[in-house]
Amino acid sequence: MSEPQPARSAPDAPSSDTEESPGLSMELVFAVQDALAEERVTEIEDLVPGLHEADAADLLETLNRDERKLLVEILGSTFDPEILPNLDVSVREEVIEWLGPTGLARAVTELDSDDAVEVFEDLDEEFQHRILSQLPQAHRMILEEGLSYPEDSAGRLMQREFVVIPSAWTVGETIDYMRAAKDLPDDFYDLYIVNPKHHPIGFLPLSRVMRTKRHVRLTEFMETDLKTIPLTMDQEDVAYLFRQYGLVSAPVVDDAGRLLGVITVDDVVHIIDEEAGDDIMKMGGVSEPDLYSAVLDTTKARFTWLVVNLLTAILASLVISLFDATIEQIVALAVLMPIVASMGGNAGTQTLTVAVRSLAMKDLTEANATRFIGKELLIGTINGVLFAVLAGGVTWLWFESLSLGIVIAAAMVINMVVAGLSGTLIPLGLEKVGVDPAIASSVFLTTVTDVIGFFAFLGLAAAFLL
Amino acid sequence: MSEPQPARSAPDAPSSDTEESPGLSMELVFAVQDALAEERVTEIEDLVPGLHEADAADLLETLNRDERKLLVEILGSTFDPEILPNLDVSVREEVIEWLGPTGLARAVTELDSDDAVEVFEDLDEEFQHRILSQLPQAHRMILEEGLSYPEDSAGRLMQREFVVIPSAWTVGETIDYMRAAKDLPDDFYDLYIVNPKHHPIGFLPLSRVMRTKRHVRLTEFMETDLKTIPLTMDQEDVAYLFRQYGLVSAPVVDDAGRLLGVITVDDVVHIIDEEAGDDIMKMGGVSEPDLYSAVLDTTKARFTWLVVNLLTAILASLVISLFDATIEQIVALAVLMPIVASMGGNAGTQTLTVAVRSLAMKDLTEANATRFIGKELLIGTINGVLFAVLAGGVTWLWFESLSLGIVIAAAMVINMVVAGLSGTLIPLGLEKVGVDPAIASSVFLTTVTDVIGFFAFLGLAAAFLL
Repeated sequence: MSEPQPARSAPDAPSSDTEESPGLSMELVFAVQDALAEERVTEIEDLVPGLHEADAADLLETLNRDERKLLVEILGSTFDPEILPNLDVSVREEVIEWLGPTGLARAVTELDSDDAVEVFEDLDEEFQHRILSQLPQAHRMILEEGLSYPEDSAGRLMQREFVVIPSAWTVGETIDYMRAAKDLPDDFYDLYIVNPKHHPIGFLPLSRVMRTKRHVRLTEFMETDLKTIPLTMDQEDVAYLFRQYGLVSAPVVDDAGRLLGVITVDDVVHIIDEEAGDDIMKMGGVSEPDLYSAVLDTTKARFTWLVVNLLTAILASLVISLFDATIEQIVALAVLMPIVASMGGNAGTQTLTVAVRSLAMKDLTEANATRFIGKELLIGTINGVLFAVLAGGVTWLWFESLSLGIVIAAAMVINMVVAGLSGTLIPLGLEKVGVDPAIASSVFLTTVTDVIGFFAFLGLAAAFLL
Repeated sequence: MSEPQPARSAPDAPSSDTEESPGLSMELVFAVQDALAEERVTEIEDLVPGLHEADAADLLETLNRDERKLLVEILGSTFDPEILPNLDVSVREEVIEWLGPTGLARAVTELDSDDAVEVFEDLDEEFQHRILSQLPQAHRMILEEGLSYPEDSAGRLMQREFVVIPSAWTVGETIDYMRAAKDLPDDFYDLYIVNPKHHPIGFLPLSRVMRTKRHVRLTEFMETDLKTIPLTMDQEDVAYLFRQYGLVSAPVVDDAGRLLGVITVDDVVHIIDEEAGDDIMKMGGVSEPDLYSAVLDTTKARFTWLVVNLLTAILASLVISLFDATIEQIVALAVLMPIVASMGGNAGTQTLTVAVRSLAMKDLTEANATRFIGKELLIGTINGVLFAVLAGGVTWLWFESLSLGIVIAAAMVINMVVAGLSGTLIPLGLEKVGVDPAIASSVFLTTVTDVIGFFAFLGLAAAFLL
């Protein structure tokens, strides 16, 4: 820690009453809602424009549609364009509609290129064209270029505003240039040093440049271990690089290795969140865009998944119907059979969750897959035996039949071993054939554990109890 | 974009063959495994020490225990301490054991204070004491102080190395001080300006300092909208602040508002990942430390969850057993009843997933909870009706009984509406009483949908079909 002498005069520190949860306060939301209900315009003009753009975005999302529309109308031309990239897609679409092409064109002109592309990319094509035609040439070109890269690629994420320094410069020349230049980005963390072909050959965190004497050349102390990102790299891989190597910014290069843009960590933080959220949603069988999308869109998005589940449930029923004569004779089987299926499903889901998450984090790879499968198989066997004893014991006591207890115990071991195996092999197999294991694994898994669970239990019962 | 003139001479750009997936390559893992198998020490000394610490950590995690131990032994005193904070906890514990107290004491001395605390906090107390006694006084105090803050708090996360500037200084004085000072951190992004009481009163991104003329005072252009973090703030809230406000670093203050440390975005990126991963794991019923923990630890961790599931499965069986006489007369009920329960469970899980994720992201709040519940209830009703028609139709055709079809249709509507309600009310209720909805929601939910599903279907059948 560095401890320079205390300064002579300075204002007092802000009060640190940060006891409550951070971010937008509920009191403010309710105050704005009240003010909107009675259209107290001046009160709203006091409350909202001072908010950080991220909090303002949260406020808009929390309001209902009518309140939201009224607020956007009241803010009018004072609406801060920085709010737009912070909004969830479905709310953003509404707000953009209310802003209209002129309002949006103004907003896009004010945003950084990466944010402008983000706001722009989800609009329908006709709307895009109308806005493009209203933009100054330079902005139009940047947007069109950004949109030409694949969705979720590094090209879409990168900022075209950044600082490059020729390799011959000294610290002094660099500082003088930065003090004079007018078109630098607001904030940046690293300088990129390029050769005459405009290839990045090194970078320097600003703190190191600042601590170095004026006469030293940048090439003398620059970092050469550059993690360059190709234009087409998927954002998931970009996030991985930032996380793995603790990057604050990274250069994006074209096929020829020329520096085209820079990705900064603040954008990556959002991607990490987004990707993790996507995985949670996919595993829960949800694919809707966000919390704020319309009821019908959401219903439709969930319907498909439920249809798949109906089919697998019917498959399980078909297995049960094979044994209807057995069940007719021993009704206890109908009472107990969900236990076997459900325990297999839950044990399998545990394994599956670890596998899917480890695959997403690149912790589970070819090199340790065999070890992982072996471990899960062992866990499945141990837990299978433990729960066979428990379920068998409960059954014996409940139905006063030792043989029924033995049958459920045997079925339990079988289903939990199968669950451990399927929980590893299904996601690994899907990953191998290029299907996202987060989205498809769990339906395959529960199909297997239901079918095997019912089949093993009822089959053993038919064989040994009749 | 800034475009200074191309420089005169510079090395060529590195080849950009980044086609393959980023990070540690499988070829390298296999090469190291081969070299370890035949103990080709010099080959290992060629391959490993050049790796980035995060890749070296991945390599250690991917190897099995014996290979790992051999590698740590071969690296010996050249083992890079920066690898330690990058390791998952269970592998880290092993490696620390092999390094021994002397090796670890050396490592801790070399690490930044936040990383040293991270490596240190999970060790057992006796081991901690042995290492502390071997450390120089200054390092011991920093570690002891760090460990005195609550687990997962800002105090544990913060770095005690940072740059503070008195409020009277100019840009020139600041740069001169930084060029002369010896004890500054390696990299930093923001300067903090403090008053005589050592309260932070503003900050400046380095890029702005660098672009400003020497004679200007920092207070003239500093940012005063400081997001100060209290020492005891939970890391989840810290991550929220960074994400919400796009922070690169933030000051940590004590109760009196004095600046004690700084948290930087690279640490927060790991927390965001960790928290998202935790939620995925909890929802999957998994609480084990990580992929690399021992089989017995993992089995034990999962056992508890499976016991809870066994109890809820038995509860569902009890409901079925109420209707065993009915099932004896109509075996088709046993065949069909899992469909009703499973569709309710899946629809409820969809709702639940959205609710849990939205709560974690602070998107779902008191202000919009009623709207959310209403929306999910509506979706549950629509999907309930749709799947009632589908399941009823299938049943009618399959068992050639219209009345059986009507019974399953009615049960389906009931269970899917209940699922929509429970999927929202359970996580909201748990959050309200301070229980993490990610961990407990799904077991409550499936209990409700199983019990209601079986009860509605079998009850309606008993009432109308006999």
